[in-house]
Amino acid sequence: MSLIVQKYGGTSVADPERIAAVAERVRDCKSAGNQVIVVVSAMAGETDRLLGLANEIVKLPRGRELDVLLSTGEQVTIALLSLALQRLGVKARSYTGPQIRITTDAAYNKARIVDIESDRISSALAAEEVVVVAGFQGVNEIGDITTLGRGGSDTTAVAIAAALAADECQIYTDVDGVYTTDPRLVPEARRLDKITYEEMLEMASLGAKVLQIRAVELASKYLVALRVLSSFEDGPGTLITSEENIMEKALLSGVTLNRDEAKLTMLGVPDRPGVASTILGPVAEANIEVDMILQNMGADGTTDFTFTVHRNDFDMAMSILERISSDLGARAIEGDNRIAKISIVGVGMRSHAGIASRMFAALANESINIQMISTSEIKISVVVDEKYSELGVRTLHSEFQLEQG
Amino acid sequence: MSLIVQKYGGTSVADPERIAAVAERVRDCKSAGNQVIVVVSAMAGETDRLLGLANEIVKLPRGRELDVLLSTGEQVTIALLSLALQRLGVKARSYTGPQIRITTDAAYNKARIVDIESDRISSALAAEEVVVVAGFQGVNEIGDITTLGRGGSDTTAVAIAAALAADECQIYTDVDGVYTTDPRLVPEARRLDKITYEEMLEMASLGAKVLQIRAVELASKYLVALRVLSSFEDGPGTLITSEENIMEKALLSGVTLNRDEAKLTMLGVPDRPGVASTILGPVAEANIEVDMILQNMGADGTTDFTFTVHRNDFDMAMSILERISSDLGARAIEGDNRIAKISIVGVGMRSHAGIASRMFAALANESINIQMISTSEIKISVVVDEKYSELGVRTLHSEFQLEQG
Repeated sequence: MSLIVQKYGGTSVADPERIAAVAERVRDCKSAGNQVIVVVSAMAGETDRLLGLANEIVKLPRGRELDVLLSTGEQVTIALLSLALQRLGVKARSYTGPQIRITTDAAYNKARIVDIESDRISSALAAEEVVVVAGFQGVNEIGDITTLGRGGSDTTAVAIAAALAADECQIYTDVDGVYTTDPRLVPEARRLDKITYEEMLEMASLGAKVLQIRAVELASKYLVALRVLSSFEDGPGTLITSEENIMEKALLSGVTLNRDEAKLTMLGVPDRPGVASTILGPVAEANIEVDMILQNMGADGTTDFTFTVHRNDFDMAMSILERISSDLGARAIEGDNRIAKISIVGVGMRSHAGIASRMFAALANESINIQMISTSEIKISVVVDEKYSELGVRTLHSEFQLEQG
Repeated sequence: MSLIVQKYGGTSVADPERIAAVAERVRDCKSAGNQVIVVVSAMAGETDRLLGLANEIVKLPRGRELDVLLSTGEQVTIALLSLALQRLGVKARSYTGPQIRITTDAAYNKARIVDIESDRISSALAAEEVVVVAGFQGVNEIGDITTLGRGGSDTTAVAIAAALAADECQIYTDVDGVYTTDPRLVPEARRLDKITYEEMLEMASLGAKVLQIRAVELASKYLVALRVLSSFEDGPGTLITSEENIMEKALLSGVTLNRDEAKLTMLGVPDRPGVASTILGPVAEANIEVDMILQNMGADGTTDFTFTVHRNDFDMAMSILERISSDLGARAIEGDNRIAKISIVGVGMRSHAGIASRMFAALANESINIQMISTSEIKISVVVDEKYSELGVRTLHSEFQLEQG
């Protein structure tokens, strides 16, 4: 008998019909002899509906009362799913985050889980019940309802799997696994059977929107076996696990594309200590997150300083640079919001040399000019002109024969 | 400084605009130097929307999970109202039934309040906060969410007023008070300034739909000063209080009309002990509630047995009588579902003789035939042909000069 945590997102429980379909999937897992805990999100559209109501009352609703409001979304789903399970003759019982004592810190709207009282869940499981838990929510130490912010339900599922030492945490979504790259860009893209936590983190943060980074981080920390599956069709999905559980490591796991960034450059800044922080300080103060950073020393004792931000922050970042450029004695500033970041990800890089040069050569072969490069232990990212997005991804996917597995 | 409990029903909080209007009313009460607890219902239509979702999953949703589902309705309202109050600069904090420890028995869908932990509310009030409480819901001793069933939010408000010894419990609704009769029937109908609990109970159970009987009973038990007011216009409303708080008792408080009943008669039943229970036993077993009962002994040693039921139960009650009539040796059965019950209500009856004969004479004067009569200490009801409904009510309203106060 295994203990399985299943998590269904908003589109999987979008209406009563889909909830009934989820109930059948849960029943099958239970009938196969497993103990099952189900974590659900709000029905698709429900959170937006609630936010819309709050917006009519106050422009930027937040704080304690926003969590009281939003947490009703998941509460509706747990009740409906429990009713659907009972209709199938499956013993089921719903729990809100506060009821099952998912204790969080006090940060409303973006709380972090501190503890889960596994006793309550264990005794419900011992009573042969399917335990249906509202994702995305918890309770702080003074008894207030809190919500976990973006990706909260995935995080709830992983946290429960960790607390109960579940055998597997299955994340049901609208895709049937993690792919070597976006199949809409590259029809030959292949579903991965397995991928390491580290690779998944790089893939997630680079634009593959299957799983929330936060949940993968938590799974990695507590070594929770995480599986991404489709709630609409059967299949093995993709298992996200530790490197030691993957016998034959592929050279690369995937190619990702991120078109959400923009690039800013300050040219000819006199090269003296503290230049980077003088430039990036005001950017950080404006709550703009910086991704890639590049500093090139020129021959004339000046330096060119380049960085990328989210495209939504481009205009504000440009105006900040304009404001500070004369103080810094910069020659000019440049901006480009039509760039793309293409990355290759794989733990195999650690043991194989020459991956980077193979990547650069393949791109050069297609006359794709590389504007920036950044590397980590298991990934290499390049910034190119946006118009080369698809070509670049296809070229690299083919170069590293990712379609072959 | 007074402690006021205000309760707003579904139509008063039907949309964000109305919730904002309620917030202004609450702010004004607070600004006038009062401590304020607000109890709210789900936004009009929300409970039906939730039931609709559940109905798509299972035909007759009930039990524990139905309460988990329905309780979200009020939770949405408390969050929105608290946000609206905060926007007006009023310190406010929402509480669900479980959070404020409204403890109930274990009867899901129709729980009864056992206890309220007044400490939590008191300390919030001491912190100068408006306390916004979700009506209709509580928590049982094993931590499950329960709902109070029909009239639940009124009951929550009165229970909190009782537990906190509030100075007044104000029920805001879409009418501006309790009237001597339905103003749609009698344009001269007058709003009552005061009415006793007992009169209100008779009025409520006889068809005046302003307040739930259950809430009035609770107010009467704990002597909570209850006031019915309009949430759409200003005015003093109607105060429901003890008889000793009403100096000048009017002879009568009102005339009520109930068109929801039907009458059944079993004719010529041999008069022997146990006839009544032989007839009403099977009716009760079918879960049909009986209102008026009349038994007339005939000259020939037989009896005619007449009773009234809700019109929805008429057909089933008739078929029960048909089934048992031959066993009882009855001569015939008769049914009439086109009747109306008209009642006069007033504590003044206790001290004034001749009210009944004045009532019967006034009706006779208009050639209205009386089919049945039933009396209690403070009311007299008659059953007449449905076609005399309006005429009967107007005749009695005028006979007892109720328009004059």
